[in-house]
Formats: sequence, structure tokens, C-alpha cells
Amino acid sequence: MAAEHYTFGPYKIHPSEVFYATDLSYAMVNLRPLLPGNVLVCSRREVKRFVDLTADETSDLWHTAKQVGSKLELHHKASSLTFAIQDGPQAGQTVPHVHIHIIPRKTGDFEKNDEIYDAIDVKEKQLKEKLDLDIERKDRSFQEMAGEADEYRALFL
Amino acid sequence: MAAEHYTFGPYKIHPSEVFYATDLSYAMVNLRPLLPGNVLVCSRREVKRFVDLTADETSDLWHTAKQVGSKLELHHKASSLTFAIQDGPQAGQTVPHVHIHIIPRKTGDFEKNDEIYDAIDVKEKQLKEKLDLDIERKDRSFQEMAGEADEYRALFL
Repeated sequence: MAAEHYTFGPYKIHPSEVFYATDLSYAMVNLRPLLPGNVLVCSRREVKRFVDLTADETSDLWHTAKQVGSKLELHHKASSLTFAIQDGPQAGQTVPHVHIHIIPRKTGDFEKNDEIYDAIDVKEKQLKEKLDLDIERKDRSFQEMAGEADEYRALFL
Repeated sequence: MAAEHYTFGPYKIHPSEVFYATDLSYAMVNLRPLLPGNVLVCSRREVKRFVDLTADETSDLWHTAKQVGSKLELHHKASSLTFAIQDGPQAGQTVPHVHIHIIPRKTGDFEKNDEIYDAIDVKEKQLKEKLDLDIERKDRSFQEMAGEADEYRALFL
């Protein structure tokens, strides 16, 4: 499971931000979560499009997402989950590496349930800008993210 | 592959509307597609939540979605795909049966890329109302839907 770093498109993700991993997939906390428990599940191999994943990678990615979603829904006392892949730039993908957005959902978490999707895109663009510009992360400290990842990692022990 | 009808929550789906099926999953055209090629991939077994699927069902559902998405993207000359599961009522699910929304995407298909998600929910609610009320389908005829399903079925021969 341990890796020196995980690849997310052109970016390197520190293992402290990764709370669960298999040989083919990993789950990480978000720089700016939309809602508590909003995480990403990524393929370990850097591929742009969902169709580029092998059969094993496809299965593993979604088994991982299912497990992660289930544990985080319970952990955050939520009652539903949003799973989404923005597969390609015209679908709102800004980091060209297959990843599933998982968001634990509760009644009234967004005024209209669907605003969540607007927010996914805005945040993904912000993530890209942040990482592109290599600006110091102001929104969440590394410690805060590592702490959240520790919390989630414990769910899989 | 043939079945007398397919189950979608409390509804029966006529095989004419189903264009691809495996032992565990099926893909059907939409009563009111948001964009050309907007289809649903469902588990054949009626379960409400993604976590309720077995490992085999999970793999099969997403292998099916990958294949269907890939073929419809090409067929509709699109350049990206949206994949989404609204997993539970607080995530916008209105038909309590696991299903993946697949939508081929192109530049400028929606003014803002994310309006697609608002539309998914509205249409799903309309589908439910339509089927609940058993009103004659005004928006698309059975013939039109069967014709579209025929067109897509040919992609898998």
C-alpha cells in the first residue's frame, strides 16, 4: 500500500493525504472539500479517460469507491452518496487522470441537491490552479488534510 | 439476453427499449433524453443502493457502462462522457434502483457544463411522474424509443 507519492495527473500526492489504497486504486482527501467526507478515488496508473482503464482497474476502482463511500457515509452520518466521473474536458474534467468524486449526502446539505455538481467543477478548477501555481495552500493546511486522512484510514483497519 | 421485461424499481421496461444486456446489467434508452445518447445502465437485480450490489454485479455494471459510454460517445461524435450515480434520495435518486446516468458530452452542449446535473434530476422526476401516473407518453413515442434502441443495439453486434 505505501508509496513515495501517488500520481494525480501532472501532480504528486503525498501519502499522508491518501487514506486507502489497493494495488490499482487509491482514495485521497480533498484540498477543499465541498462537504464533509468529499474525497476522490483515483486509478494508480495515470490514464485520462475511463475507457483507458483495464478490466481489472475498472473493477478495482469501483470496488474501492463502493467501500470508501459506504464507510464515509456511515462515518459522516449521511444517508446518500453522489458518485460522479467527469470523463473528459467537455464533461468538466480539469485534471486529466480518471477519478471518481464521492460525496456523502444529507437532507438539506445543498439548498438544491444538484448545486453539488456546479461545486465539483469550481473546486476542481481551484485545485488545478492551486497546484499549477504552486501557491502555499491557504485553505487547508497539510496537517489538517493529513489529520483527516488519518481519521479515514482508521476506518479500514 | 432476451427477457420478457426488465425491472426498473417498481416499473417494467419493455425489451424494445433495452439495447444491450449482460446476465447482470442492462442498458436502456431514456423517455426524455437530456442530450442525444443519454441512456441508463441498470443492475438487473432490483437493489436500491450501490453498496447492495455484489462484487460481480458491481464489476459488470461498470464494464457495461464503460462499453456503452465508449460506443455512444463515438456514435454521437461527442468528446467526453458524464457518468453519475445518484445513490439514495438525498443524492437526487427518485427511482430506487441502482442506475448509472451516461451522457455523451460536446463543447457547448450545455451553456454551463454542469447544468446537465440539474437536468438529470428534473428528468428523473418527470420519468417517475410519467410512469407513476401511467399517462400516455407524449414526449417520445414507443416507436421512437424502440427505433433508438435498435440503432444502439446494432453498435454491439
